[in-house]
Amino acid sequence: MPAPDSGGAPFARVGIAGLGLIGGSIALALRRRSPSTRIVALDRPDVIDAARSAGVIDAGAAAVGDLGGADVIVLATPIPAILESIAALGRVAPDAVVTDVGSTKRRIVAAAAAAGLREFVGGHPMAGRERGGLAAADHALFEGRTWFLARGTASDDALLRIKAFVRGLGATPADIDPERHDRTMAYVSHLPQIASTTLMAEVGAAVGPHGVACAGQGLDDMTRLAASPADVWSGILETNADFIAEAGTRLAESLARFARELQDEGAVEARFETANRLREILRASRTP
Amino acid sequence: MPAPDSGGAPFARVGIAGLGLIGGSIALALRRRSPSTRIVALDRPDVIDAARSAGVIDAGAAAVGDLGGADVIVLATPIPAILESIAALGRVAPDAVVTDVGSTKRRIVAAAAAAGLREFVGGHPMAGRERGGLAAADHALFEGRTWFLARGTASDDALLRIKAFVRGLGATPADIDPERHDRTMAYVSHLPQIASTTLMAEVGAAVGPHGVACAGQGLDDMTRLAASPADVWSGILETNADFIAEAGTRLAESLARFARELQDEGAVEARFETANRLREILRASRTP
Repeated sequence: MPAPDSGGAPFARVGIAGLGLIGGSIALALRRRSPSTRIVALDRPDVIDAARSAGVIDAGAAAVGDLGGADVIVLATPIPAILESIAALGRVAPDAVVTDVGSTKRRIVAAAAAAGLREFVGGHPMAGRERGGLAAADHALFEGRTWFLARGTASDDALLRIKAFVRGLGATPADIDPERHDRTMAYVSHLPQIASTTLMAEVGAAVGPHGVACAGQGLDDMTRLAASPADVWSGILETNADFIAEAGTRLAESLARFARELQDEGAVEARFETANRLREILRASRTP
Repeated sequence: MPAPDSGGAPFARVGIAGLGLIGGSIALALRRRSPSTRIVALDRPDVIDAARSAGVIDAGAAAVGDLGGADVIVLATPIPAILESIAALGRVAPDAVVTDVGSTKRRIVAAAAAAGLREFVGGHPMAGRERGGLAAADHALFEGRTWFLARGTASDDALLRIKAFVRGLGATPADIDPERHDRTMAYVSHLPQIASTTLMAEVGAAVGPHGVACAGQGLDDMTRLAASPADVWSGILETNADFIAEAGTRLAESLARFARELQDEGAVEARFETANRLREILRASRTP
């Protein structure tokens, strides 16, 4: 139940590990929608100083264990650091309510169980930006977005409070199985990333910087994800490697077939028609 | 030299075959920048009626041969129709100044020579839109854009006048060899198209419409080209099949390698760094 001093918010004291785009946007959304919530955060000293000066957080912490006094701990770092935090919290605060925002869920949910965390809910907000970091954070980042939740070890009470917390940030919570989450994300999120990175590299290798500068809107759209930083993505690719390898192999095989059928007008038309139809479904799903 | 009544424009009478996005935008740009130019166009009767009612063109033509009285004929249809028009003009107006806006150049330039056209310049404006058709046409579509010109059979005089014409539409003419043009476009334009079409189809096949609706900004960007119509693209893919097959095969092989190396952090980082660097070059080249 909400504490008396939390103004109806599910958690009066929130700890956030990682004040990047997602962690920073959580803090900003709390400030805007739940001003009495106390926010303690963990990040590099310069990030903590900037966030405190801007009034985005109330205090900094020296280690993830220091967040154990919060009513909920949100792990919002890249995946390798999430896994380290889970191990540390298992040692010092196994009864803390803990959630995360990592882009894969099987490995993280399994790690929380293995570490002995008793109130862990895996989470993944469907929200992102081209640019990362606290400077790109936005209190409205989660508005109207789906926030997947994989129950993990949590009690009914903790799960309900996490759902209320997520709703309080403007998002819509949706239960999902870690296996199903990771397979879906392998196709709709991780495959586009490796395709974009690979396309950018191969175009550059073939035509050089001068050729790249001939790009039109199409290549520009297709390579926007190629600006994504490796440090965020290496943990995603590593912890979802089986499904992403399946997806990447399927795309590679389909592309190689297409490359052999370019003069087969019927085959070309069938491919375009399938893609046209699916693109229309995607477009319609994203129109408010 | 400009005719006395053309207000300094290189051609007093312009014939346009195909009033789609490009042909329609040429007509609109001429109206805006060279109002005394007479424009005769060939398209379906309903398109001609709409364009005449809107004052975009002066008159319609029944066949491409009827455009032979114009001072320049611009072929702005999909590639198969461009090739048919070239053959027809070779029979009835071999001395007409003719250019085209097709997305590949080797086959078209060779067809013009084979048809006996004596004043042909292959052209390709680097301008496009997500939506096609006259309704999407824009007088400013070519402003600041490169317009590639492959000389073909044309005399110096015809080439200079085509360059002035292209400049008059707001574009910057750039000489290019058909072979070099087609190889560069295979990578920067045609490969992104087949990659987007294939990605959309494979994601749809793997996760279904419900999964597609989970897409974030990344998949949305990566599949915008998947809305492209087959009728525009089948001619491009067929007339540049060798280079596109080379590009598609390279991308497929690189993607398959990536799919095998997802847990190799060093390899992942190297791929992201290469792509980050090239993406920055691309981005900088597109910033005004």
